[in-house]
Amino acid sequence: MQKLTIVKIGGNVIDNAEACSRFLSTFASLSGAKLLVHGGGKVATDLADKMGLVTQMVNGRRITDKPTLDIAIMVYAGLVNKSVVATLQAYRCNALGLTGADAGCVISHKRPVLGIDYGFVGDIDHVDDSQISNFILQGLVPVFAPLTFDGSGILLNTNADTMASALAVALSTSFDVTLLYCFEKKGVLADPSQDTSVIPFISQTDYVQLKEEGTVSKGMIPKMDNAFDALRKGVAKVVICHADDLELYETADSFGTLLSLEV
Amino acid sequence: MQKLTIVKIGGNVIDNAEACSRFLSTFASLSGAKLLVHGGGKVATDLADKMGLVTQMVNGRRITDKPTLDIAIMVYAGLVNKSVVATLQAYRCNALGLTGADAGCVISHKRPVLGIDYGFVGDIDHVDDSQISNFILQGLVPVFAPLTFDGSGILLNTNADTMASALAVALSTSFDVTLLYCFEKKGVLADPSQDTSVIPFISQTDYVQLKEEGTVSKGMIPKMDNAFDALRKGVAKVVICHADDLELYETADSFGTLLSLEV
Repeated sequence: MQKLTIVKIGGNVIDNAEACSRFLSTFASLSGAKLLVHGGGKVATDLADKMGLVTQMVNGRRITDKPTLDIAIMVYAGLVNKSVVATLQAYRCNALGLTGADAGCVISHKRPVLGIDYGFVGDIDHVDDSQISNFILQGLVPVFAPLTFDGSGILLNTNADTMASALAVALSTSFDVTLLYCFEKKGVLADPSQDTSVIPFISQTDYVQLKEEGTVSKGMIPKMDNAFDALRKGVAKVVICHADDLELYETADSFGTLLSLEV
Repeated sequence: MQKLTIVKIGGNVIDNAEACSRFLSTFASLSGAKLLVHGGGKVATDLADKMGLVTQMVNGRRITDKPTLDIAIMVYAGLVNKSVVATLQAYRCNALGLTGADAGCVISHKRPVLGIDYGFVGDIDHVDDSQISNFILQGLVPVFAPLTFDGSGILLNTNADTMASALAVALSTSFDVTLLYCFEKKGVLADPSQDTSVIPFISQTDYVQLKEEGTVSKGMIPKMDNAFDALRKGVAKVVICHADDLELYETADSFGTLLSLEV
């Protein structure tokens, strides 16, 4: 099977113009088929502030009312997605910006209200892997904003880590997929205050223990849940790493934290 | 040659939720290959107002400084483009939202400063008709926001009428193209105060006379210049009509104003 590298880049990197440009230059130079999923970063919150909207958060997730959804669409699908696409194009990477609505790529449903109403947030039902494969096989590089679509005309905010994982799983039927979660840390850290304390390898058994000890906590838990879910559903390899270390991907034996189902 | 219908929908229709939805339902039902170009409407100006920015206009065109460009990207490529795509998808029309940067579809250069500096405004150099044809032949319906790309990472604001005309010209090498400019009037009016005074047919010679008489003036001049330019460069047919009359396109002998090079 043909190799496909799926990279998720976090909002903190997107927010830093210099780090983002460095990352995109490295991403553009990766050989072979590739796909990018980006987060939103603080631009959406900043814009909401300027417009006098208050962002509500529950369990680390934004509550998406209609004005917040409109801002997410403007910032994620507009400003961030198109800036990333234009930058990649300048680096001779044939990027194509997408949301889940475009070409019907990622269909979701509004998250049911169970205690908390997250608002316009979508849980993914279906990825049109044949349409996305088509784009990739034409030499295009899909760049996904974290927005999906309910099939009846409503766009829904979707966590970018989850979106990357769902895309990786769906595309692993046609490609040998490596999923890289790139963010502002060197990997999963044994001691969050020590940037050098990267754990190079975490098995599923290790992960259960790391959660129990509290080494892995907060925002890292949904990220790693998504990662192990992807591995269980057929993705060949998942790495969590610093955006700057993406350049090691094609040359280094090991970088960041490699996740595996095996011990 | 295969038929291709290119429709440009104006900002005034986009601004009216009901008229827009009616228009998109008709557009979705058109048979054969098609492509949509949309304007931006008042949403961009409203957002600029909310953020305390002042929109500068010269000769009916917006002066695009960096904050205005960012708003145009957010509104045109984000909110408007993705709402149109999601609505069309709900009507079972396989829409794909694009700017000129996506897949390198429309390359432009920043308009040179000759007296007036229009700011981040792009004049089109090249349309990648083979890439866009590819999308169309796959059954996708490209939906263009009025933004182009200078090849070096900068997005540029581009007049939607001009964009529709440039796309129609480039695609007329592979398709038999009809270009429809849909807006809030029934066509070109002999008396602007009388909505029923539609001129059914205007030749290039008629156009010169209508301009001299002042019947055609203001915003209609660049629209009709674009239209006649498209005809001279190989587009088969150009019609200027009301958005609601798009439903007559496949059935009526005549509707709106048909433009022609011949007398």
